[in-house]
Amino acid sequence: MNGADLLCDTLLANDVDVCFSNPGTSEMHFVAALDRKPQLRCVLGLFEGVVTGAADGYARMADKPAVTLLHTGPGLANGLANMHNARRARTPMINVPGDHASWHLAADAPLTSDIDGLAWPMSHWVGRATSPEDVGPKTEEAWTQSIATRGPVTLILPADSAWGEVEARTPSKLPMPVPPAIDEGPLKAAAQALKSGKRCALFLQHRALRERALEWAGRIALATGADLFHPQSDRGQRGAGRVAVRMTPYNVDMAIQALEHVEVAICIGAKKPAVFFGYPGKPSSPLPDAAEVIQVAEHEHDLEAALQQLAEAIGLTAKSPFKANAFVQNEIAEPTGALTPATIAAAVARRLPQNAIVVEESVTSAGPLAALSPGLHPHDHLPLTGGAIGEGIPLAIGAGIACPDRKVVAMQADGSGMYTVQGLWTQAREELDVVTIVYANRKYAILQGEMRNVGVNDFGENARRMLDLDRPDLDWVLMAKGMGVDGGRAETIEEFCKLLDHAMKTKGPFLIEARI
Amino acid sequence: MNGADLLCDTLLANDVDVCFSNPGTSEMHFVAALDRKPQLRCVLGLFEGVVTGAADGYARMADKPAVTLLHTGPGLANGLANMHNARRARTPMINVPGDHASWHLAADAPLTSDIDGLAWPMSHWVGRATSPEDVGPKTEEAWTQSIATRGPVTLILPADSAWGEVEARTPSKLPMPVPPAIDEGPLKAAAQALKSGKRCALFLQHRALRERALEWAGRIALATGADLFHPQSDRGQRGAGRVAVRMTPYNVDMAIQALEHVEVAICIGAKKPAVFFGYPGKPSSPLPDAAEVIQVAEHEHDLEAALQQLAEAIGLTAKSPFKANAFVQNEIAEPTGALTPATIAAAVARRLPQNAIVVEESVTSAGPLAALSPGLHPHDHLPLTGGAIGEGIPLAIGAGIACPDRKVVAMQADGSGMYTVQGLWTQAREELDVVTIVYANRKYAILQGEMRNVGVNDFGENARRMLDLDRPDLDWVLMAKGMGVDGGRAETIEEFCKLLDHAMKTKGPFLIEARI
Repeated sequence: MNGADLLCDTLLANDVDVCFSNPGTSEMHFVAALDRKPQLRCVLGLFEGVVTGAADGYARMADKPAVTLLHTGPGLANGLANMHNARRARTPMINVPGDHASWHLAADAPLTSDIDGLAWPMSHWVGRATSPEDVGPKTEEAWTQSIATRGPVTLILPADSAWGEVEARTPSKLPMPVPPAIDEGPLKAAAQALKSGKRCALFLQHRALRERALEWAGRIALATGADLFHPQSDRGQRGAGRVAVRMTPYNVDMAIQALEHVEVAICIGAKKPAVFFGYPGKPSSPLPDAAEVIQVAEHEHDLEAALQQLAEAIGLTAKSPFKANAFVQNEIAEPTGALTPATIAAAVARRLPQNAIVVEESVTSAGPLAALSPGLHPHDHLPLTGGAIGEGIPLAIGAGIACPDRKVVAMQADGSGMYTVQGLWTQAREELDVVTIVYANRKYAILQGEMRNVGVNDFGENARRMLDLDRPDLDWVLMAKGMGVDGGRAETIEEFCKLLDHAMKTKGPFLIEARI
Repeated sequence: MNGADLLCDTLLANDVDVCFSNPGTSEMHFVAALDRKPQLRCVLGLFEGVVTGAADGYARMADKPAVTLLHTGPGLANGLANMHNARRARTPMINVPGDHASWHLAADAPLTSDIDGLAWPMSHWVGRATSPEDVGPKTEEAWTQSIATRGPVTLILPADSAWGEVEARTPSKLPMPVPPAIDEGPLKAAAQALKSGKRCALFLQHRALRERALEWAGRIALATGADLFHPQSDRGQRGAGRVAVRMTPYNVDMAIQALEHVEVAICIGAKKPAVFFGYPGKPSSPLPDAAEVIQVAEHEHDLEAALQQLAEAIGLTAKSPFKANAFVQNEIAEPTGALTPATIAAAVARRLPQNAIVVEESVTSAGPLAALSPGLHPHDHLPLTGGAIGEGIPLAIGAGIACPDRKVVAMQADGSGMYTVQGLWTQAREELDVVTIVYANRKYAILQGEMRNVGVNDFGENARRMLDLDRPDLDWVLMAKGMGVDGGRAETIEEFCKLLDHAMKTKGPFLIEARI
């Protein structure tokens, strides 16, 4: 039994049984150990951004971490952007980059780099197994930290710690970290504000966006008139029978307008709302300056319990009513006319099955589907949380691995989709039930809007060359087929509906390029 | 005039006139400034690893830095792996990630991250323009540091430093940093060793591998019997009329064998040779323990001058003879038989034009072409230097931008090619004269060899799932066509030769999938 075996056994003892992987030479003993543990499912990504993005999607749906296997510093570096998203989504994830054998670091071989330094900016905890025997306690600490802090952690595994012998043992299951108690002070202040007649808004994030937590928020909203907002979201539970929450708009002026009436912001899982980017002459927060901010609970708390305690503090019970969304999916008309985000949204909405998972990386095209979502069959919604584009395709992989019996519908912008396009191959290899809908507008639409925001309306050659994706056009169907994913292109809404009908009836990955 | 204008003008004044780019919202004022400078050529990459890898290839061929435009921390993170390669190749590169406006950082908006922390592990220098007026001196420092240290530097540009007004001015050209003088002590020691009759080997790297520097090394080798090795290479000048240098083998046992006779290692640009990875029971350096190591010059020195001084110290002059490679390209027979790395090498070697640029990211298949290279038309050879795979396609972009009149022949493994496959689109958009030859063996061949090295010969399901690239097979021709690059698949050497003839006659990008 070597250090790598001990790592695998410790993970398995704690119910970590999926490894998203892209190995290299320094991880060969880890690969060999995984080969001895068929109960730990290994999923290959052809690029590390696919690996960490899939681990994010997996943990959002499975509510437990996966492990990632990454090749030294550069492999970790390639995974950092989607670790950033996981960090913002508060997703547990245990990253295990290999490193050179400890005695080989001084030689400064070509692949040597400061792995600890690379890991810290995107990890809640970083550790290094300094000997084979150290692998056991460090793996346990990594697991515990990932659960307790709800975020990515990084455990660096030097090759000699992986290959060195350890005393044979069977690791035991660790106690589940207990969330800290909710502080009385902010809870009382929030309850008082809700009863004061002031205009209150609840800002919800993370597990406050799950169905049961939202019901408590809905009771508060119905009883007090408070608004429900989410600044970002990692996994929202949307659809009929559930409580609706408004996203604070991405656009700064729209966000200011949406929140202009708020006198008290009660934050549960969310922080004080911030605009996505700072602009000249605009504020950092869309809240009115005079608004009071009460932070009732942070991401590491039990957010459903926080909402329940807040509701009970104003006299509500589990029997108090809340406003649930009505089911109106069957009333959505089959779209006609041009192929646009609006007609695509109607077509998808009509066909969304029970319990689907909607992955979304399509900021400029997502509005119409979000508007329809409350009336649809209950479904989970996994958006890009941290703003680091290139996560849609990997998120769909992770969701598909975590929930093989649920349809994954991935709404994907073309510009961001190209970042981790290799992920389509993993969807094919794992035969995941994912339909990817590419909004092919052949430009970085969001940036063209932002250029106009900074006062540039006539684009010169350099701006066009940086913001357009045409010349040549991308052919998504060829790319998908090249990676083993079947697909088709729609130029009209009728073609789109026909392709979508086929994709919804078929199990397995399919891609639709929607030329909008 | 704003900070972003000043940045562009300072770069242009110092002959930096290519920007590899993947922008985001926080860089919109930088994009707008670039749009006002049509003399600064902007090249879009659809992923930041393409951007930094292209900047590496560009600077290796242009011998001057490009600037990269990256979107905040995650954009920089995506570029880090190829910055690692550039750091190992000692390539000057000026990375400019944007950041939030300084007053917006405290809000911890979704895209906020520790950009300085991310940059340091892969940068020789990191700076932050703390005001619009600070952009001028920081850009000058970035340029100077990049040239003087020969490596990537990172200048973080907060949005308010980009958009803020500065006093109008015309930046002036900076003095070129002067390399430090060669120390007398090691030079004398090396000269003495060369004259002592001991078995000496010169370990050359970086600009010691350029044609004129190699001639001095060749004079020393011919006069003293010293061997010439390069541990890694960033840009080797190979072919007829030039001096041959042997690569120290990647395989540790072969490396030990190749160097077993060395009594004195004279390092010029290279450091004491290290094996690529540490293995149980094997040494960190392939040199015999008893070998003396003399470090005559480091990468920041003038390495041609160092070799000249060393040659002169043992009595040689510019008229002393050296052994130049004979031209035998016309004697290479047209290959027949199976499609293998050997027959592919013969077919490519026969057709390699004058002054070609051979990009190589194909460790397990590259040997046969390397063996033929001394007898070919003089050409430049750009290999993967730092071991962070996913640089071949971007390197070819950079070489093609730097040298539009030279044919770029990119020998690309399939596994590493998938890391930055998006780069094919940039090759199409920029109409670069690149023929990419994919060795499609449908596996991580190097890792399968390493698994056998660790004693695993029968692969189980998990190992196969991590080391094979089949199920499904990648179709490189479809992927290339999906990104606007024409191509064809060869299953036989005859098909391969026909496709290669077409590619060599045609200007513009072409991809050949060689199913080996």
